[in-house]
Amino acid sequence: MTARPANPHQARLLRLLRDGGPSSRAQLGDRVELSRSKLAVEVDRLLETGLIVADGLAASRGGRRSHNVRIAPGLRFLAIDIGATSIDVAVTNAELEILGHLNQSMDVREGPVAVFEQALAMARKLQDDGLAGQFDGAGVGVPGPVRYPEGVPVAPPIMPGWDGFPVREALSQELGCPVMVDNDVNLMAMGEQQAGVARSVRDFICVKIGTGIGCGIVVGGQVYRGTTGSAGDIGHIRAEPDGRPCACGNTGCLEAYFSGAALARDAEIAATEGGSPELASRLAAAGTLTSVDVAAAAAAGDAASLELIRAGGARTGQVLAGLVSFFNPGLVIIGGGVTGLGHNLLASIRTQVYRQSLPLATGNLPIVLGELGAAAGVTGAARLISDHVFSSA
Amino acid sequence: MTARPANPHQARLLRLLRDGGPSSRAQLGDRVELSRSKLAVEVDRLLETGLIVADGLAASRGGRRSHNVRIAPGLRFLAIDIGATSIDVAVTNAELEILGHLNQSMDVREGPVAVFEQALAMARKLQDDGLAGQFDGAGVGVPGPVRYPEGVPVAPPIMPGWDGFPVREALSQELGCPVMVDNDVNLMAMGEQQAGVARSVRDFICVKIGTGIGCGIVVGGQVYRGTTGSAGDIGHIRAEPDGRPCACGNTGCLEAYFSGAALARDAEIAATEGGSPELASRLAAAGTLTSVDVAAAAAAGDAASLELIRAGGARTGQVLAGLVSFFNPGLVIIGGGVTGLGHNLLASIRTQVYRQSLPLATGNLPIVLGELGAAAGVTGAARLISDHVFSSA
Repeated sequence: MTARPANPHQARLLRLLRDGGPSSRAQLGDRVELSRSKLAVEVDRLLETGLIVADGLAASRGGRRSHNVRIAPGLRFLAIDIGATSIDVAVTNAELEILGHLNQSMDVREGPVAVFEQALAMARKLQDDGLAGQFDGAGVGVPGPVRYPEGVPVAPPIMPGWDGFPVREALSQELGCPVMVDNDVNLMAMGEQQAGVARSVRDFICVKIGTGIGCGIVVGGQVYRGTTGSAGDIGHIRAEPDGRPCACGNTGCLEAYFSGAALARDAEIAATEGGSPELASRLAAAGTLTSVDVAAAAAAGDAASLELIRAGGARTGQVLAGLVSFFNPGLVIIGGGVTGLGHNLLASIRTQVYRQSLPLATGNLPIVLGELGAAAGVTGAARLISDHVFSSA
Repeated sequence: MTARPANPHQARLLRLLRDGGPSSRAQLGDRVELSRSKLAVEVDRLLETGLIVADGLAASRGGRRSHNVRIAPGLRFLAIDIGATSIDVAVTNAELEILGHLNQSMDVREGPVAVFEQALAMARKLQDDGLAGQFDGAGVGVPGPVRYPEGVPVAPPIMPGWDGFPVREALSQELGCPVMVDNDVNLMAMGEQQAGVARSVRDFICVKIGTGIGCGIVVGGQVYRGTTGSAGDIGHIRAEPDGRPCACGNTGCLEAYFSGAALARDAEIAATEGGSPELASRLAAAGTLTSVDVAAAAAAGDAASLELIRAGGARTGQVLAGLVSFFNPGLVIIGGGVTGLGHNLLASIRTQVYRQSLPLATGNLPIVLGELGAAAGVTGAARLISDHVFSSA
């Protein structure tokens, strides 16, 4: 069992070293409100536990040169990001650098037992590659609302068999280490905050457009999960009064118009109804279409594909415009599978938001694509579990 | 100049006494993480500054009986709540009880100099009534976005002449005490949290439907103001694609459909076009109509008025449904001038939200009218300034 910090000061020091890398005691002293002698005591205690180690001489600041310290380089976190149609598994060190990353297709509807069997097999593969022995903690993302911090999926619409499954408890027993579970979109937001485009932003939203569409909300640097863990569930906000029927039973939901699933369906319609020879030939070749085909066709100049992206971006932008007026974020990130649609999508979203939201809310509001791609989720998962492990009980 | 707490422990003790009333040292000890001896030191120092006073013997908990302490009963806060068409001014003690409260009509468009001249005259009236000598702080609400904590209104749409006016600085000089300024809707939310329906709720939204429509957002017990202070500005969220033109230049905004101003206009149309004899006779008598007339007509069974309320509630509910899915609050409060429309309005809002939002977000979501009426804003203003005065620099 890995040691845990004994008090909030130690927890704070560990997080500083996680995020800032090797540091001198003087550098740490600049960041924490501790007297020099108390800081020395806490650093020494952390050295004794093995959570941090000495790491060469620090640069001189005029006085006697001291040793740098860094977080123990042997600590290993397991990061599991379950999507609707695939699993990402990665191993990171305690500075949350990804040491190895695997991705496999898997339908989340096969249920938690099958999905975690696969995820654990991928984790063992990374261990066998020499990337980790025992894990010091595991962070897990699932594509639906989660009762946090218990780590139990709640009424996940696209995940039959997952409702109430004790993910945290089951994996913790299996792995013999602490486990934390969160919604996949929250992890994407945390990942972009940890190592991506949101690094210095305190209030932002991160929209994931994958098979479905959801949104992570960060307030004051912390993920905001809402009263029952469903905050950010924007896929079923009404984009059109009396609009298309949605799988949820309502009509006009954003997801009924734009998401990986809606886009694939609309692309197949365009292909079969003669609207796009480009998509038709791709459908004939592959038997099915995804957002990747739409992106490729658009890049080849296919007008129908460009229009699908424009219309989808406009619907998304319309809903986001309202959320931007409400939440007044400092940044909007667009991520997830359909970001392959790239700047056409982004342009369409921006147009709507800048046109419809209040000038005061959009005057200085970047709307950008996520920077980390598939690494965002696993980085966020590692951040989630490290926040837990590097906290005092 | 009133003394200020010297450290965060003293600040915490003062807020506990503000919210909990007279308490024994033992009761305070249960609420703060301080050793018995350190607690005694801080309480003694607060007694020396005069910020708290001894207040009779505490009930015995088995040992030697000690004295209760309470916050100095002579402290006085001034609370000013500027609305679009009226001013509320109140005086409270340090436990935020309202000792006196005046309301006068005033058009905010007359500009900050005239408005504050009036507000200060009202304050002097309350002083002359013997309710206060010198004020220990003043909290001020204005009906538009505020750059916080500088206390300067920013680009307020309905307030020509207010943009950039240094409210905090000007009033602070005038009154000779600390002043804090915030948006009026945020103050309503804080008031309901301090003494109304949101007392134990950490995450909620408070919708104020007055001349315009806005929303206060509370996250983790704290008002969330957004990146540029415009969070909660929901009046210009689009309720209808290609809908009515709005004063803001866009089309289909919620405020173009429902607010005190929109309701008055629609009522006059119903009156003059023969849709409502009841409203017509009221218009003939008074020369103008307000939401008060619509409420009275609806209570008298006027079908056109009931339909105006129902339609307005449905539009509001439609926008709130999206915000509830996004924010997953623990409570939605409806307040402001049009709450005279009462349960017809509430029923219409509820229907839309419960129908359109995700079941996980509405499963346990009370949607209620505010409890404090006009006292919400001034209570929130007193809370705002007391949070500032009872904090350590």
